[in-house]
Amino acid sequence: MISKEQLAKLIDHSLLNPSVTDDDVKKACQEALQYGFAAVVVNPSHVPIVARELKGSPVKACSVVSFPFGLSTTAAKVHEARIALEEGAEEIDMVMNFSALKSGHSDLVLNDIKEVVQEARRVYGKVIVKVILENCYLTENEKRRACQLTMRAGADYVKTSTGFGKSGATIEDVRLMRKVVGPKFGVKAAGGIRTVEQALQMIDGGANRIGASASASIVESLKPS
Amino acid sequence: MISKEQLAKLIDHSLLNPSVTDDDVKKACQEALQYGFAAVVVNPSHVPIVARELKGSPVKACSVVSFPFGLSTTAAKVHEARIALEEGAEEIDMVMNFSALKSGHSDLVLNDIKEVVQEARRVYGKVIVKVILENCYLTENEKRRACQLTMRAGADYVKTSTGFGKSGATIEDVRLMRKVVGPKFGVKAAGGIRTVEQALQMIDGGANRIGASASASIVESLKPS
Repeated sequence: MISKEQLAKLIDHSLLNPSVTDDDVKKACQEALQYGFAAVVVNPSHVPIVARELKGSPVKACSVVSFPFGLSTTAAKVHEARIALEEGAEEIDMVMNFSALKSGHSDLVLNDIKEVVQEARRVYGKVIVKVILENCYLTENEKRRACQLTMRAGADYVKTSTGFGKSGATIEDVRLMRKVVGPKFGVKAAGGIRTVEQALQMIDGGANRIGASASASIVESLKPS
Repeated sequence: MISKEQLAKLIDHSLLNPSVTDDDVKKACQEALQYGFAAVVVNPSHVPIVARELKGSPVKACSVVSFPFGLSTTAAKVHEARIALEEGAEEIDMVMNFSALKSGHSDLVLNDIKEVVQEARRVYGKVIVKVILENCYLTENEKRRACQLTMRAGADYVKTSTGFGKSGATIEDVRLMRKVVGPKFGVKAAGGIRTVEQALQMIDGGANRIGASASASIVESLKPS
């Protein structure tokens, strides 16, 4: 049975609603430090606050890139990732260009991810890059292809959803993604995960990172076995 | 009474849903050419298609920037705008950093817009820049301040909404924005405008540009007076 501390270490505490203020971001950082979450995930313009608040702690500052649509050009994604890293981000959750995937441009999708990964590694060595597939827009074949392209591009995780599409993480998608990427690659379930039951189900299905906003409540609700 | 041709010239035909394919974008361009809309508005990665399809026509290619959250850094917004213009965009609809506005950072908001405007003008002279306030997240005072900052920054239009927030354009907001910016500045109403009645009401309230996806149906539904 998983402990509260172990569960917290799997959670990316996410504050991606665009109308949050600086104070909301600071509060989220304090919660993350208190519970020991894996990371705090924010929009790019909030990265400096998070980097400052989390400095010297094991909680990572994580920035989204091309969020939530993924339809920036590759050059813009690379540039946005570089600025986030310069400002103190230690992990990157980038959105895949799912329109390009659906239009049959696998090479563009591959290159889009690869260039962000290479830029991140070039600047900071061990940066973890997660790629948000936004499964709600994809067919099963497109989900498989997206997983394969993410692996080939050298990223670290496939992530189910932005949380701002028409639906979020499903256990079926997590199982499918884990099956395609194998046992050693990262799978992050995010979008609509609000209870400890959902979080545990996703972990049971193969997720090794959970994105959530109600992170404190999820951890507090964990019953001792 | 306005004619179909006059109404079409006020409409920015918008294809911003992130799951559209290249073929959807091409189809939207053909509609825009047929009806004579003001512009076709797309996400950055679709700009090259639109620029090619509309080449030599009076219909403008328009790219959104930092869409739909507006929480990229200023440097990333400037970079994204520059790439869009290089790839053929002739107008820019950028999203204001409304989180910064709500956190009291008026200087950041002003500078954010000003740098995009200056970059656009530096590169292409007469580029029209519209600033999306995303009114659904703002108080009345914040809406007023956003209009004033947009004017001071040298942009051309205030725009009500992205169409992806919790609500879209309202007639009250259009009236307020027109009142604050005066008679000569641009006001674009967008988000949830699906009928000719809504479009005419927005124009009557002071909008001189309408953003819509159901643009063809709106124009076709106009009754002769």
